Amino acid sequence: MLRAGIIGASGYTGSELVRLLAAHPGVKIEALTSRSLAGKSVGEVIPSLRGLVDLRFEDHNPRGLAGRCDVVFTSVPHGSAMETVPGLLDAGIRVVDLSADYRLSKEAYEAAYRKPHTGFRPAVYGLPEVHPEVPGARLVANPGCYPTGCILAAAPLLSKGLVERAIFDCKSGVSGAGSSPSATSHYPNLAENIIPYDVTSHRHVPEMVQEANRLSPKPVKLHFTPHVFPAIRGILTTGHLLLREKADPERVRRLYEEWTRGKPFLRLAETPSLASVRGSNFCDIGWRAEDGGERVVVLSAIDNLVKGAAGQAIQNMNLMFGLPETEGLRNSPVP
Amino acid sequence: MLRAGIIGASGYTGSELVRLLAAHPGVKIEALTSRSLAGKSVGEVIPSLRGLVDLRFEDHNPRGLAGRCDVVFTSVPHGSAMETVPGLLDAGIRVVDLSADYRLSKEAYEAAYRKPHTGFRPAVYGLPEVHPEVPGARLVANPGCYPTGCILAAAPLLSKGLVERAIFDCKSGVSGAGSSPSATSHYPNLAENIIPYDVTSHRHVPEMVQEANRLSPKPVKLHFTPHVFPAIRGILTTGHLLLREKADPERVRRLYEEWTRGKPFLRLAETPSLASVRGSNFCDIGWRAEDGGERVVVLSAIDNLVKGAAGQAIQNMNLMFGLPETEGLRNSPVP
Amino acid sequence: MLRAGIIGASGYTGSELVRLLAAHPGVKIEALTSRSLAGKSVGEVIPSLRGLVDLRFEDHNPRGLAGRCDVVFTSVPHGSAMETVPGLLDAGIRVVDLSADYRLSKEAYEAAYRKPHTGFRPAVYGLPEVHPEVPGARLVANPGCYPTGCILAAAPLLSKGLVERAIFDCKSGVSGAGSSPSATSHYPNLAENIIPYDVTSHRHVPEMVQEANRLSPKPVKLHFTPHVFPAIRGILTTGHLLLREKADPERVRRLYEEWTRGKPFLRLAETPSLASVRGSNFCDIGWRAEDGGERVVVLSAIDNLVKGAAGQAIQNMNLMFGLPETEGLRNSPVP
Amino acid sequence: MLRAGIIGASGYTGSELVRLLAAHPGVKIEALTSRSLAGKSVGEVIPSLRGLVDLRFEDHNPRGLAGRCDVVFTSVPHGSAMETVPGLLDAGIRVVDLSADYRLSKEAYEAAYRKPHTGFRPAVYGLPEVHPEVPGARLVANPGCYPTGCILAAAPLLSKGLVERAIFDCKSGVSGAGSSPSATSHYPNLAENIIPYDVTSHRHVPEMVQEANRLSPKPVKLHFTPHVFPAIRGILTTGHLLLREKADPERVRRLYEEWTRGKPFLRLAETPSLASVRGSNFCDIGWRAEDGGERVVVLSAIDNLVKGAAGQAIQNMNLMFGLPETEGLRNSPVP
Repeated sequence: MLRAGIIGASGYTGSELVRLLAAHPGVKIEALTSRSLAGKSVGEVIPSLRGLVDLRFEDHNPRGLAGRCDVVFTSVPHGSAMETVPGLLDAGIRVVDLSADYRLSKEAYEAAYRKPHTGFRPAVYGLPEVHPEVPGARLVANPGCYPTGCILAAAPLLSKGLVERAIFDCKSGVSGAGSSPSATSHYPNLAENIIPYDVTSHRHVPEMVQEANRLSPKPVKLHFTPHVFPAIRGILTTGHLLLREKADPERVRRLYEEWTRGKPFLRLAETPSLASVRGSNFCDIGWRAEDGGERVVVLSAIDNLVKGAAGQAIQNMNLMFGLPETEGLRNSPVP
Repeated sequence: MLRAGIIGASGYTGSELVRLLAAHPGVKIEALTSRSLAGKSVGEVIPSLRGLVDLRFEDHNPRGLAGRCDVVFTSVPHGSAMETVPGLLDAGIRVVDLSADYRLSKEAYEAAYRKPHTGFRPAVYGLPEVHPEVPGARLVANPGCYPTGCILAAAPLLSKGLVERAIFDCKSGVSGAGSSPSATSHYPNLAENIIPYDVTSHRHVPEMVQEANRLSPKPVKLHFTPHVFPAIRGILTTGHLLLREKADPERVRRLYEEWTRGKPFLRLAETPSLASVRGSNFCDIGWRAEDGGERVVVLSAIDNLVKGAAGQAIQNMNLMFGLPETEGLRNSPVP
Repeated sequence: MLRAGIIGASGYTGSELVRLLAAHPGVKIEALTSRSLAGKSVGEVIPSLRGLVDLRFEDHNPRGLAGRCDVVFTSVPHGSAMETVPGLLDAGIRVVDLSADYRLSKEAYEAAYRKPHTGFRPAVYGLPEVHPEVPGARLVANPGCYPTGCILAAAPLLSKGLVERAIFDCKSGVSGAGSSPSATSHYPNLAENIIPYDVTSHRHVPEMVQEANRLSPKPVKLHFTPHVFPAIRGILTTGHLLLREKADPERVRRLYEEWTRGKPFLRLAETPSLASVRGSNFCDIGWRAEDGGERVVVLSAIDNLVKGAAGQAIQNMNLMFGLPETEGLRNSPVP
Repeated sequence: MLRAGIIGASGYTGSELVRLLAAHPGVKIEALTSRSLAGKSVGEVIPSLRGLVDLRFEDHNPRGLAGRCDVVFTSVPHGSAMETVPGLLDAGIRVVDLSADYRLSKEAYEAAYRKPHTGFRPAVYGLPEVHPEVPGARLVANPGCYPTGCILAAAPLLSKGLVERAIFDCKSGVSGAGSSPSATSHYPNLAENIIPYDVTSHRHVPEMVQEANRLSPKPVKLHFTPHVFPAIRGILTTGHLLLREKADPERVRRLYEEWTRGKPFLRLAETPSLASVRGSNFCDIGWRAEDGGERVVVLSAIDNLVKGAAGQAIQNMNLMFGLPETEGLRNSPVP
């Protein structure tokens, strides 16, 4: 039985980690820490889990986790994970970090986030479908929600060097913006609307560029524009891929079939639907080759809080510790 | 041309006043005041009105409105209208107050709002369909959104003394909670949900009790439970009326037909729909007499920002100044 | 391992049975029948279950289930269950019927549904929290979604004979109206709207009257008005209970605490929220005693497809066969 | 006073024409025809217009309109306008056709719609902001909703020959799919979801290609992928424009300012919002030049039923008859 800790267990990602780990047959949640919620029970903070999880939040004290936890999930703001992760690793704890602090090289991080990285350690980028080095890793950087949907949708074409330019137009549910009320999440602003933001400048771009170019033998130009639309959960990715040569639909089909085969959380779908993945760790993937053209449109649907965050973190944990990849993650979507 | 001022012209009600007055052929908006927005143009604050309204917010200075305005709409928080209204009246300006400060007797106000009323003046309760004293009034207290929907739905049965007990179960769009983000208006909390609040204790109850008992020759027991549901605009009222005697459907039908006849903003509808009143000053009303029973269910649909606030305020203004009741308010709903 | 069959396994209730039974550790789905879907795989029909459930629909042939199934869930339209259930029982199969055919006495059924009941058999009304005769039953009539929410919310006050009149004002997500597109489920009609229907005449009234009066030692007058609001899943019940005497809040509190104690799917909540029960078998319950008054407002939140249909059916199955009541039903809500 | 007829006045576009023409000071609606609704009053069919429009639908009889109407709006399915329009023109009536029948050359139409065009007549493409030949025209082909949003967003860059390739990723409210319930408009399918469709093959592509290449002095490669998202009204267009050279943000700004100047329905907005155009004929436009890159993202927001259909049709009518372009179309958006 793995003993797990969650640092920063408030917020949507933290709640989702608790929801999923509580149902994981191979894990015992040993510690939940939160500065603001210390002393409160899970049921008070996450009413949906009343009667299911009998735990209390404790104060944030990473050192106190040494010896108590085999694995810790750090679900803290970008820039503060780096203060905590090195100590955990040094105490022999394996870490899945859900912040952006370990997803990039030190240089790329400092350029993108415009601050020095004060606790850099080498990490594996935790997108297991394209990173075979996750099993056995001691530090995994859990990917951003958008890069997960984009890279999984485009991987088979990227890895063959077919993609010259990729334009990802993503549509996200608003839980990605966090649990604090804001102008974006204000119902009268979001309902009956769809809001583009960070139109050319989202911070997930460097991750996507890194992973796309890692997969592709030839350089890829990459653009990304996110939108928030009226949904709680889910990211639909529409990837407009401009190819180096015309797409033969038969070849595209074969590439997608080969690539998804044996990957338990990837499913091909004519038209991926957020309803079909809601609450689950699936990434449903579809594609269309433009008639006689150089564009392939790739589509993917994920639940941003599961495959885009907490579920993928647990998938990474499973692999790090030699558990079956799907352990605790076979729950059915709730359409 | 009436010269109108709006005090407190930010927020949804203020924006709606600007939207409707800007299209009113007999009104010129002379002044818009807001402490927080002074100096900004309407187009900056209310982007939907860019290109339609060329005005700037000025600082809050009620005295400065004397001589400039024939009528002022006070759209300020409960408890602060009383600081402004007497001065406006004394300067010869007629006032439509959209706060709760003048809807009740001094005693009832102080009991309900638990604070002394420091600027009481007699006012007409501005529900024109049941208050023939609105024409010519100098101070009109614009009703709350919920009382508007409840009283208009039940009026014909109340006025005949048929109602022993009325239970109003109301469902409101979230714009009624204001333009500031809050836990209730946070999209992930409200979407796919419906939230009861102030279940037995909403502050609109004293208004409803006052108006129901004013209409009814016999005492009425009244209960009210509001809910917020996923909508920007609109209040659907479901009034469960328990009668002193069994309801004869034919008589009920006749009472509703007689009562709505000649009232330009009331329309009978088999099942009132928020879509049919959206953006307009209509109140659509329906009813069902329970088969052989003592219950009549009355239904009404209004746009809470129009008939429930700004539209009704303009309807009151029209009547106060002898303009046609519907002037500037014949805009079609936007379903 | 129980061998289960589902007759009429298309539609939302059928899909939800498959979703939940597929995750039940003590059940093997042996047969799924559907006239229209025979031959298709579950994954084709219910895309969310691709990769999770590897079964095909077979043609409707109730006799063919004899010997293959220990329990059959009949999820067919009202009026057609009566053609199938007797044969299943005669073949030694236990049945949970999700239609309305066995919820009422023969006489009450024929009066409410205005057709002869051609296959009547005695059944237990499957609301386990108030029906201790479910364990061991051979035929359980699974309750309607609305009666489930209403009766569970009001039970402790009903059973003490305190309730003189109960007015249930319910708000349902639209999945209750079925998986076929209709005017009510048409997005432009439902979004930003809330639609009352069957305002005084819904067919669930006789069930509610039956159960309320079974619980209460004194006669209860009962009224019910349902609404559809913009949500996929969930029923919020607002029960306006008029008591025979004034409510002492302390006594009400004690009654609710005593009554919910030990019932694994009932949770007390200050304000029940559909988000907290989504996808789960919980019924969250709250109440407010009107200050010094005779009204208690009771509130409940359920997922209409789970506690209001498929989940409760499985809870009944568990009890019929001596399994733990919560087996296969401990999945966390997905807020 | 122009006498107007509407052929095919059911459906959302027809209703919107009635809503807007009823408020137009220079127009009298002379005839509304509908095969299915003949004899019914507008109030029965369009409940929002009860009390505002006192007209009855008459049977479809285009010849009967000769002498009665100065202008006719044909709001009928693609492929049937061509049966009606020539007769109207020959009777001396001017026509605004809202179908696709007259938007393309005969050859392009027959290729795109795969059927012979049996009633071709030369028409002006009715996007007045880029078609100065609308004034005085006798037959105007009202553009599709998607081309309106796309072309208006990209026009200033297209007309300078800067755009090498344009990828339009559009998000539409579901009223564009019509007033008949369908799987796409079924609330449980659309809510909390966003659905790509006709991913590489939408029939509006030929219109867009025609207009983009008409504006641009150099050939433009154009791609288009539409989505339906949870909204009643509105199209947000995200246009990913790949330029022939790097974009200088200052130049882009100047081009947009120059181009929108004096066009009464175009407004520049940092981030266009559907809320700000709802119910109105505005097209709000924004843009972002990618830092140092070759991509400019252009954004536009329209109400698909107004600027995307009925409102633009009336704008065309105004210009055809020498009325002020904005007559009857200055109604404020309803956010």
